[in-house]
Amino acid sequence: MTDTTRLLSRAAAQMTESAIRKMGSVLASGRDVISFAPGYPASDTFAWDDFAQIAADLLASRDGSVLQYGPTRGYRPLLETVAGLMRQRGVATAMEELLITTGSQQGLDLVARVLVDPGDVILLELPTYVGAITAFRNLQASMVGVPQEADGIDLAALDATWERLRGEGRRVKFLYVVPNFQNPTGLLIGLDKRRRLLEWAERRDVLIVEDDPYRELYFEDSATEAEVRPIKADDENGRVVYLSSFSKTLAPGFRVAWIAAPPALATKFEMAKQTEDLLTGSLDQRMIYEACRRGVLERQLPMLRRHYAAKRDVMEAALQRELRGATWPKPKGGFFLWVSLAGGIDAGKMIHRAIERGVIYVTGDAFYVNGQGQNMLRLSFSAPTAQQIDEGVARLAATLRDELAARETTAAAGGPAGS
Amino acid sequence: MTDTTRLLSRAAAQMTESAIRKMGSVLASGRDVISFAPGYPASDTFAWDDFAQIAADLLASRDGSVLQYGPTRGYRPLLETVAGLMRQRGVATAMEELLITTGSQQGLDLVARVLVDPGDVILLELPTYVGAITAFRNLQASMVGVPQEADGIDLAALDATWERLRGEGRRVKFLYVVPNFQNPTGLLIGLDKRRRLLEWAERRDVLIVEDDPYRELYFEDSATEAEVRPIKADDENGRVVYLSSFSKTLAPGFRVAWIAAPPALATKFEMAKQTEDLLTGSLDQRMIYEACRRGVLERQLPMLRRHYAAKRDVMEAALQRELRGATWPKPKGGFFLWVSLAGGIDAGKMIHRAIERGVIYVTGDAFYVNGQGQNMLRLSFSAPTAQQIDEGVARLAATLRDELAARETTAAAGGPAGS
Repeated sequence: MTDTTRLLSRAAAQMTESAIRKMGSVLASGRDVISFAPGYPASDTFAWDDFAQIAADLLASRDGSVLQYGPTRGYRPLLETVAGLMRQRGVATAMEELLITTGSQQGLDLVARVLVDPGDVILLELPTYVGAITAFRNLQASMVGVPQEADGIDLAALDATWERLRGEGRRVKFLYVVPNFQNPTGLLIGLDKRRRLLEWAERRDVLIVEDDPYRELYFEDSATEAEVRPIKADDENGRVVYLSSFSKTLAPGFRVAWIAAPPALATKFEMAKQTEDLLTGSLDQRMIYEACRRGVLERQLPMLRRHYAAKRDVMEAALQRELRGATWPKPKGGFFLWVSLAGGIDAGKMIHRAIERGVIYVTGDAFYVNGQGQNMLRLSFSAPTAQQIDEGVARLAATLRDELAARETTAAAGGPAGS
Repeated sequence: MTDTTRLLSRAAAQMTESAIRKMGSVLASGRDVISFAPGYPASDTFAWDDFAQIAADLLASRDGSVLQYGPTRGYRPLLETVAGLMRQRGVATAMEELLITTGSQQGLDLVARVLVDPGDVILLELPTYVGAITAFRNLQASMVGVPQEADGIDLAALDATWERLRGEGRRVKFLYVVPNFQNPTGLLIGLDKRRRLLEWAERRDVLIVEDDPYRELYFEDSATEAEVRPIKADDENGRVVYLSSFSKTLAPGFRVAWIAAPPALATKFEMAKQTEDLLTGSLDQRMIYEACRRGVLERQLPMLRRHYAAKRDVMEAALQRELRGATWPKPKGGFFLWVSLAGGIDAGKMIHRAIERGVIYVTGDAFYVNGQGQNMLRLSFSAPTAQQIDEGVARLAATLRDELAARETTAAAGGPAGS
């Protein structure tokens, strides 16, 4: 057989499978597994009847453009709808700043392709979204992490990192942040800190890439719409590239998201998208457009906020009941609980035992670029039912007991000295 | 405003808008323009009623996976269906060789990302598909063209090119070919030449990337299914990466296509796709799968062959009637007529006059990587009606008369000496 290994590009030679997608194969194996791994929205919340009606109307129209090629920028009425959503979020955007993307994952890839040469530095929060890490890694970016505080990224550490990199003669292309209900920590960047972060970016001449998929999913018992105001809303100088999506609010199977960026960058994103997939699916764009136009999105949001807040409550209660010593920041929105295990347990080493017990999660180290996070795990409470959450956390607790027992056995049998 | 130009990656700095997509803005301007430019399938041939029924069934099922995230490789039953289509084409493919892509454009981009470092050589036919050229250019590939004969790529020239490049110490990563009803020429690579091409690739240790979107659209008056046998069908050593699509047969708005490749490459394509868009749209994949399973694709094909053959006939007759001196190879399938203008007319310079007259095409030079093709134009007969084809060719003839008249005026007024 032809040896293709030696034909790979440098980028491809170092490509690896994402930690989250790997868990997908465990699920596909058909075992009885409760998944806290991928951040799937709950499919029983999707607006099935509305989508059925919309599809029926669109396909009965025989309007050719519903199934035809279309502009790379996106379906014009959808772009106008997105501009309206942006206005509601406090951001004034012109048409030439907007681009529809095939999910926000494509947005991240386009941003990196257009801005990053191999070795260029991207700053990011520690921990951060694993899909961004792998996208940036595939473009051979050099990623440098900055720790977070309770109200988000540590600004002093950020500036010290920037100074150090400048001293080393390295070029920082942008800072990547998820300001609302961050994946994986669930943290919010405080409003005051958002303002100071933008000031910092201006002072240090760094772009901010603001990834905002969860902002509509604030839990009304603990967060308000005022708290999820985009950094982009105060961006007067074209300093912020903003990404958001319909995946968490309408459905991810449609693959419809958007970027708002300074026009010169938006044009380059469009050119990169032209060669990447020509356009985002036409029917998908029309389905999403109609769902907005007919008020489906607006009707869904209050229900979704209640739905996911209730699941967070179920998961927190189960963890408090079952997982002694574990701690996590209380999420005020989004899909995730970011759990620190007590007693120096390694979440990565424990995953095989967890799969045996019938529960999966994403190991904390996947969200770091510096080898940290071994005793952390990300639990997604969005897709499983309340009953599955209870059962899954019980399985997780059993896994931990197994792990501790095995450790004691190893220690008693004369395990590694001093361990 | 922030100056983003200096932040661009080397790839982005040289990105340009595709010639075909540019014509899209002319169409979007709302003028009375007949388009022979983009290779759009005829939307009145789409299986509207079948798609309406399929969408209704899928969305009524409330099967979560229809609108949920799913595996990057693709929806498993669709992958199995694709394996069946490949078998019908004479190619035995295992599951680990297949990947669903978001249109074949994504396939081209993935292939280039996984195989090409900046400066690596890609060999291609002169002329060739402009979407491939821009995808490869965005990855900073060095593209080297090889002329075509009536039965496809010139093998002697191909080998001489390879020898020359080897002499220069340059690395050829793959040869890109469109063997069936090539875009833009409409040419077929002869069966004997396909075999010899594969032997050449083995001997010279070069991969072949075989892009095959039009193969089902052979015109039964002049071509047979035997003549469109993929090169991949005789590939015993994993030498060929094969791409095909449902865009030209079912509908492009779904963005569903596939790659068949040696397993080690398919795995890398999957990893690259993970960071590019996570997955191809779930509803789109299900719609296509159901259209195959319910026999819609099979029913469509004979109708489509007749439909496009009839349009080719209309366009050829109109050109013979109206465009004296123009020549083209008769297409035995596909969407395109590749026209050489008589009298040294420059199709690029003439395009503004054509837009004024209300007709657009793609200028020949867009399909070359060496500056050739000025007197060529690609006419797509697939989307316009017979009446529009007649009217569009008449407008094209009027454009040519304008152009010739303007040239004579310039010459009479003492234009460039010797012109």
